[in-house]
Amino acid sequence: MKTSPIAVLVFALLFGAASPAAADPAFAVSAARDFHQENGARIVREFADLLSLPNDAADTENINANAAAIAAQFSDRGFRMELLRHGDAPPLIYGLRKARGAKRTIAIYVHYDGQPTEDANWTNPPFEATLYSDTIPNGGQRMALPQDGTPIDPDWRLYARSASDDKAPIAALLAALDALEAVSLDLTSNIVLVFDGEEERGSASLDDYLLAHKQKFKDIDMWLFCDGPTHQSGRPQLVFGVRGITGMDVTVYGANRGLHSGHYGGWSPGPGWRLSRLLASMKDENDNVLIEGFYDSADELGVADYAALSAMPEVDDALRGEFGLAASENNNAPLAERILAPALNLKGLKSAEVGAEARNVIPPTATASIGIRLVKGNDPAAMQDLVEAHIAAQGYHIVREDPDRETRLAHPLIAKVTREGGYRAVRTPLNAPGVSDLVKTLQLAAGENLILNPSLGGTLPLYIFEDISDAPIIILPIANFDNNQHAADENIRLGNLFYGIEAYAAVLTME
Amino acid sequence: MKTSPIAVLVFALLFGAASPAAADPAFAVSAARDFHQENGARIVREFADLLSLPNDAADTENINANAAAIAAQFSDRGFRMELLRHGDAPPLIYGLRKARGAKRTIAIYVHYDGQPTEDANWTNPPFEATLYSDTIPNGGQRMALPQDGTPIDPDWRLYARSASDDKAPIAALLAALDALEAVSLDLTSNIVLVFDGEEERGSASLDDYLLAHKQKFKDIDMWLFCDGPTHQSGRPQLVFGVRGITGMDVTVYGANRGLHSGHYGGWSPGPGWRLSRLLASMKDENDNVLIEGFYDSADELGVADYAALSAMPEVDDALRGEFGLAASENNNAPLAERILAPALNLKGLKSAEVGAEARNVIPPTATASIGIRLVKGNDPAAMQDLVEAHIAAQGYHIVREDPDRETRLAHPLIAKVTREGGYRAVRTPLNAPGVSDLVKTLQLAAGENLILNPSLGGTLPLYIFEDISDAPIIILPIANFDNNQHAADENIRLGNLFYGIEAYAAVLTME
Repeated sequence: MKTSPIAVLVFALLFGAASPAAADPAFAVSAARDFHQENGARIVREFADLLSLPNDAADTENINANAAAIAAQFSDRGFRMELLRHGDAPPLIYGLRKARGAKRTIAIYVHYDGQPTEDANWTNPPFEATLYSDTIPNGGQRMALPQDGTPIDPDWRLYARSASDDKAPIAALLAALDALEAVSLDLTSNIVLVFDGEEERGSASLDDYLLAHKQKFKDIDMWLFCDGPTHQSGRPQLVFGVRGITGMDVTVYGANRGLHSGHYGGWSPGPGWRLSRLLASMKDENDNVLIEGFYDSADELGVADYAALSAMPEVDDALRGEFGLAASENNNAPLAERILAPALNLKGLKSAEVGAEARNVIPPTATASIGIRLVKGNDPAAMQDLVEAHIAAQGYHIVREDPDRETRLAHPLIAKVTREGGYRAVRTPLNAPGVSDLVKTLQLAAGENLILNPSLGGTLPLYIFEDISDAPIIILPIANFDNNQHAADENIRLGNLFYGIEAYAAVLTME
Repeated sequence: MKTSPIAVLVFALLFGAASPAAADPAFAVSAARDFHQENGARIVREFADLLSLPNDAADTENINANAAAIAAQFSDRGFRMELLRHGDAPPLIYGLRKARGAKRTIAIYVHYDGQPTEDANWTNPPFEATLYSDTIPNGGQRMALPQDGTPIDPDWRLYARSASDDKAPIAALLAALDALEAVSLDLTSNIVLVFDGEEERGSASLDDYLLAHKQKFKDIDMWLFCDGPTHQSGRPQLVFGVRGITGMDVTVYGANRGLHSGHYGGWSPGPGWRLSRLLASMKDENDNVLIEGFYDSADELGVADYAALSAMPEVDDALRGEFGLAASENNNAPLAERILAPALNLKGLKSAEVGAEARNVIPPTATASIGIRLVKGNDPAAMQDLVEAHIAAQGYHIVREDPDRETRLAHPLIAKVTREGGYRAVRTPLNAPGVSDLVKTLQLAAGENLILNPSLGGTLPLYIFEDISDAPIIILPIANFDNNQHAADENIRLGNLFYGIEAYAAVLTME
């Protein structure tokens, strides 16, 4: 948004003689630091309260309780809040706080739902936030939540579902607002809040929400997406793109029931062997995808993208050490490059049981859950088409439901393909308007270490915003990279939470 | 056992003037038929009571309750019963009833434990025996258990775990004893009962039991194994061999934890792809096992075996129709032939989750449960060695426990191989002593339809008996072949239960 001199005059007439506080993001960062040093224990305890609300998007009662609690907190801090509704979907939390003499309007996207949990795999219950002196694998000791006045070590970890993904930005933003309030610093931009309640279920209703309420979003000058981790090097980053996502379940068949592996072993075809051969045909032993056309629709990278890539720190050796890998895919090709290509993932395999639960049965089916991460240029349905064409080319008859008797007797090889939804990748040009201002502001919190990253490996539904707005879309992550998001023992490093408070204080007072 | 004229004289002096009732197995069969026609409803209800006792060998309390109930029933019918004990293993039920002027001693083996159940897959609870007018897939209607006087349709099915495998022989033998008692027919052979309580867990203690009590088994002239199904054609059979069994779980590894499939997809190796390639290397698309030496140690078949094979009814087309298979393994090679070769089965696959439970994770591990069915000549451990050598030949470093960090960083490909126990196959020559008498006797119950089958596809621990005794080992199955043994909705066709009563009446009075 450009501010004309006449608009400034009109503003002064409407709101009185006092001009708005001069923008001073450097002071804001310093105020935020003082604030979290004095109030760190309380910030952590209040965050633990927020994390105690279970937040699987499919759990309607609890997801609504999350939305109400979050809206109340921002309402207390001067935002006009609304819980937008679309059928039975989790509400979209919308908020607006106008700034006097606003230089622009910034929208902040967060999602307040979390991945489903498998409680049995967690060290502590996922919705009882638990503090440790370090990561659990590093020998961190469990600690009580801190009392007021306790100094907080930035390497402490708070464990809970959504501690990083993605309630950490909510907690940091609330604390940043409190820090500015404590030193009477005004916001310099209008702030719009867009908090998604079903991101981990594919943000199925977000498109409908934004289209139904597009008047609310028409004046936005910059979208800030607060999700994902900082760089694996530990350095803060701004990210200019995300991968898209889609996937499918593939089930192959043997006999129409489980058969005794003695009476019929060697005679009745085993679906596990069939699935193994089918999957083995999709990827070679150097991890190249063999599905025809899989790499063809990806956009070529530009010069600026390559320049940013080459300035990024090398993390591969450290990551392989961290994850216990003698080698990574494709003969140790760099992670930053691999993220800019589409990926075929095997999320799960299932056929009867293994281990102590295994029985002497030839199972009737075997299923693979295949995930596809997309890059700019890949259409989700077209990528699914390629996988399906590959399955058909291996001799499979493709069905959408479990086959009936006639179908079974007509086709030796049958695959049921169940397509997931998904969405495309987005990448913002590194030289888009407003980017340099944002970079300069964030360097006040992040220092010269700030990395400019062409794309995150993960996925956010940015395409929806690209569809309704021309404003640049930029991701500002705060979570530590080793946060176990989407898995058991998710956690936030408290130093990252505090970086978030400083970063948001800078953004809220950006010149 | 040979009976000398002097022994007969001694017997007459000891037991008085009355000579034992003349052996009349034809009359016994007719008496058994009359008996089950008059008392069928009661036989079914009493069998339902026996099936109400859960009988997973790992469920100590219930398996002991089964043993006590079964022993009491045979004690009531003139057997001297003992529950033999070996540590915490399920008891071996031993019983002896001597016959006056016994022509021989016949041992009857049954197992009273059942496969573990997955209740969710059953139409009715597995330990509430439920009567149907036909199979459930054929549209059978659920019926109350019959009242006395209700005529029993032989096509009715009784559904419960172990209804066929392997409590049906127990119920049939009890009824046969009652039928002979009702017409005052004496047994002509001493009968030894050997009822195993952990067959479905690999009969781990049976060897110890038999060795510890081998005095009890030294005079046995013929072992009758009452387990397994009648022929798939529906015709009764005698079987002269069984396959052996072994197996192993194989786990392969990716990173040391579940990783976000967006951030690391395309970089961190997926264990599911590795497992698929490994399994695909073990079997070709025509279902030939590619593991070097897998087929080499099997004994060649003799002329008599081939003759018996060629006299067996062709069932393959009907089975393919029954099981909804367009083709069976190895280009529709006959089942009877395939059973005489070792088989490599894939009992289960598991890596993270599929379907609605799948998450966007690269799983840390993928596991296959591999079963091997063995034929005469195959040594279980040697066959496991071949599979393991194949895995190593694919570049895998083999471990016995989950790998530590050092091992992970030293080896790109790691497979944990967890070997199961197992035992070898057994086959009795078709012309062994006593076989022709048995065949003649059983034809009284089975008619000319009786099939002589060189080997069952399934497995029984017959090698243990081969180790302690030179007596021929012969299998007399009674269950219908479509009994769903080892799977959900196991059942017995009542006509097969009644055939069992007649067959045992013949055996108990064999000339």
